[in-house]
Amino acid sequence: MSEENQEQTAGAAPSRRKVIGWGGAGLALGAAAAGGAVALAGDGEGTAPVADTGAAVPFHGPHQAGIATAVQDRLHFAAFDVKTKDRAELVQLLKDWTRAAERMTAGAEVGEGAYGGLPEAPPDDTGEALGLKPSRLTLTIGFGPTLFDGRFGLKDKRPGALVELPKFPGDNLDPARSGGDLCVQACADDPQVAVHAIRNLARIGFGKVAVRWSQLGFGKTSSTTPDAQTPRNLFGFKDGTRNIAGTETERLAKHVWVSGKDAAGAAAWMDGGSYLVARRIRMNVETWDRTPLGEQEDIFGRDKREGAPVGKAKEHDEPFLKAMKPDSHVRLAHPDTNGGATILRRGYSFTDGTDGLGRLDAGLFFLAYQKDVRTGFIPVQTSLGRADALNEYIQHVGSALFAVPPGVRDKDDWWGRALFS
Amino acid sequence: MSEENQEQTAGAAPSRRKVIGWGGAGLALGAAAAGGAVALAGDGEGTAPVADTGAAVPFHGPHQAGIATAVQDRLHFAAFDVKTKDRAELVQLLKDWTRAAERMTAGAEVGEGAYGGLPEAPPDDTGEALGLKPSRLTLTIGFGPTLFDGRFGLKDKRPGALVELPKFPGDNLDPARSGGDLCVQACADDPQVAVHAIRNLARIGFGKVAVRWSQLGFGKTSSTTPDAQTPRNLFGFKDGTRNIAGTETERLAKHVWVSGKDAAGAAAWMDGGSYLVARRIRMNVETWDRTPLGEQEDIFGRDKREGAPVGKAKEHDEPFLKAMKPDSHVRLAHPDTNGGATILRRGYSFTDGTDGLGRLDAGLFFLAYQKDVRTGFIPVQTSLGRADALNEYIQHVGSALFAVPPGVRDKDDWWGRALFS
Repeated sequence: MSEENQEQTAGAAPSRRKVIGWGGAGLALGAAAAGGAVALAGDGEGTAPVADTGAAVPFHGPHQAGIATAVQDRLHFAAFDVKTKDRAELVQLLKDWTRAAERMTAGAEVGEGAYGGLPEAPPDDTGEALGLKPSRLTLTIGFGPTLFDGRFGLKDKRPGALVELPKFPGDNLDPARSGGDLCVQACADDPQVAVHAIRNLARIGFGKVAVRWSQLGFGKTSSTTPDAQTPRNLFGFKDGTRNIAGTETERLAKHVWVSGKDAAGAAAWMDGGSYLVARRIRMNVETWDRTPLGEQEDIFGRDKREGAPVGKAKEHDEPFLKAMKPDSHVRLAHPDTNGGATILRRGYSFTDGTDGLGRLDAGLFFLAYQKDVRTGFIPVQTSLGRADALNEYIQHVGSALFAVPPGVRDKDDWWGRALFS
Repeated sequence: MSEENQEQTAGAAPSRRKVIGWGGAGLALGAAAAGGAVALAGDGEGTAPVADTGAAVPFHGPHQAGIATAVQDRLHFAAFDVKTKDRAELVQLLKDWTRAAERMTAGAEVGEGAYGGLPEAPPDDTGEALGLKPSRLTLTIGFGPTLFDGRFGLKDKRPGALVELPKFPGDNLDPARSGGDLCVQACADDPQVAVHAIRNLARIGFGKVAVRWSQLGFGKTSSTTPDAQTPRNLFGFKDGTRNIAGTETERLAKHVWVSGKDAAGAAAWMDGGSYLVARRIRMNVETWDRTPLGEQEDIFGRDKREGAPVGKAKEHDEPFLKAMKPDSHVRLAHPDTNGGATILRRGYSFTDGTDGLGRLDAGLFFLAYQKDVRTGFIPVQTSLGRADALNEYIQHVGSALFAVPPGVRDKDDWWGRALFS
């Protein structure tokens, strides 16, 4: 084999190796930007669809990236329990995580030393993303209700919107796949880049936090890009067609970003943030696959081929709800059925092997962002849990809610500064 | 949103939708070929590296695709137990699977009816790959030792090379992740395409076979493309650098394809086939990540940054084994240490959530092809299991061996015809 071609050259974006400059010089953050390979999808304000899947998404901004950002192809999501009881140690970890996230989203390794470090010390980075492109990696942190239980003096800062989710009809939640003091959502177009990021954050947090549960998602099920076709879920349908696009500044302000009265009092630190609901939804694909096509289409309220609502021709045609069966999924999930409730969906399909009964352990890892779950996910899921015809084929087996703080403004800012200051 | 842009247009390859022609006309197999988007990697003979990750890989040929084919990015692997006791029913299933595999690898849906079918019947295809490109999907079938246990009158056709693997030092095998009467390896550059294929084969086999275990792989760890950099495993190292390339006809003939005396007697039906070893190798990444860089490099016998063997400058430089520690991984796995044993590696990294102890359930799903495991995997793993310094950080937790029959020659041929005829 040739010894010349040592560099992967699959595209225009700079490789991590190029970004950090292997000569040993420290990283100049923004190097990727100078290379012209930054995707315009960082701050969720008037951003354009992203074509270059190898590019870097800016980390700094008024909102965290990974919400309005055009949905990446792959997901690694992790919920953490905080093990330390020392508030200062937790704060230092959040600062360390922020610096690592800045570097990794720019396509660089964690830490200046990396492989130029001492052979006597463990490497600053685990190395498996070396040579890979930034791949539009975004890292989005959230704080769970249990973080506010008094251990860290945060009781007075628990927002009213950070409720305990009610038990919905049909819920069959596994505590081992639910909750968490912290979460990090890693999205990227290359799964190795997403896995690398979560693993390095877990490594940095060793002894202070422990992974409570995690979930890989192999395929996006939603679009936050205008005019794009909605990807299909594992039932073969397009769902969530009317999702909020990353460019719809007004809908984002109305339904997703916390501001004004929602960012007052205990929730003042949430100005510019959002609330994230994560649900692991097991789909009984084997049963579904034996269901007649007509029944499948009635259950969703769409045709399967095109994704058009009942009686309409195209996916994005306005649905006529009264033409649908009263228990159809689209009708029950529609804002008009739920007092206008609108959420930004960012879910991923998963397949985690088999369930011991010869069936695939597959489904939807549902992720939804909203400014207040009490007027977002809760009314929608109350409608669905009560009557959705789809309930015969699905089961919610994991659940978590997180307050997602605003973006990191600059290199002096850090994840959770307003909460802990 | 616009209603005009209903078609995903990410690249030059035709979408599945285009391939099958939505007007309702039946599929002309080879339509993808006519479109000029077929990757030259079908039969493992003198094939070139593939640039277009959306293209179709030819299904027919003297060898099955998915072995010498340039390694795709993603994997879904499934092992099946055969539930039927009726040989004719099993044969019919293999014929049905072959026809479905022909269609899916060409980028088409299973069955002519698909969505033009009757609303009273379940769809012929589950639908989640509609609109996706062929994505270099390959489907590779294998037959496990238990298929020859007498249920189907195949005792006399069990090849001598289809042994029971010995228990290697350090093995900690989970029976629920081991063995299987049949296997199908689905590789594709889009994971949704690989998952769709396995799921539809399982659906077609409902009542006759059941999924015993399955494994998703998110990142390839090997290269079968000349001159390419070897992808990194989850320890951050390049491993298997001297892998057999899909273009190395002589090495393939010598080490991978069954022929001549190996395809005589009971094994006559294996002419043009190969043997596949699958091992689920759990990697204790948290422990590894706390190991000093110098120790990591000693364990592998390579430097981490470049992947060069000890004392050398470049990944593909010839290793000088005596410069390495006696228990280093590269030295112990090298053909010179194992009587020339050489295998074609096609493994993938996996991350399957957490293990209940706050650690990632991550590792390597090792796949290796060879003409005879008795002169391939067995001597290599005997060396490694006994002494590899890496054993402190890994554990083999699943294992299976399959006889992989030759390729399907044409539209009248089917998977296993020579075995069952």
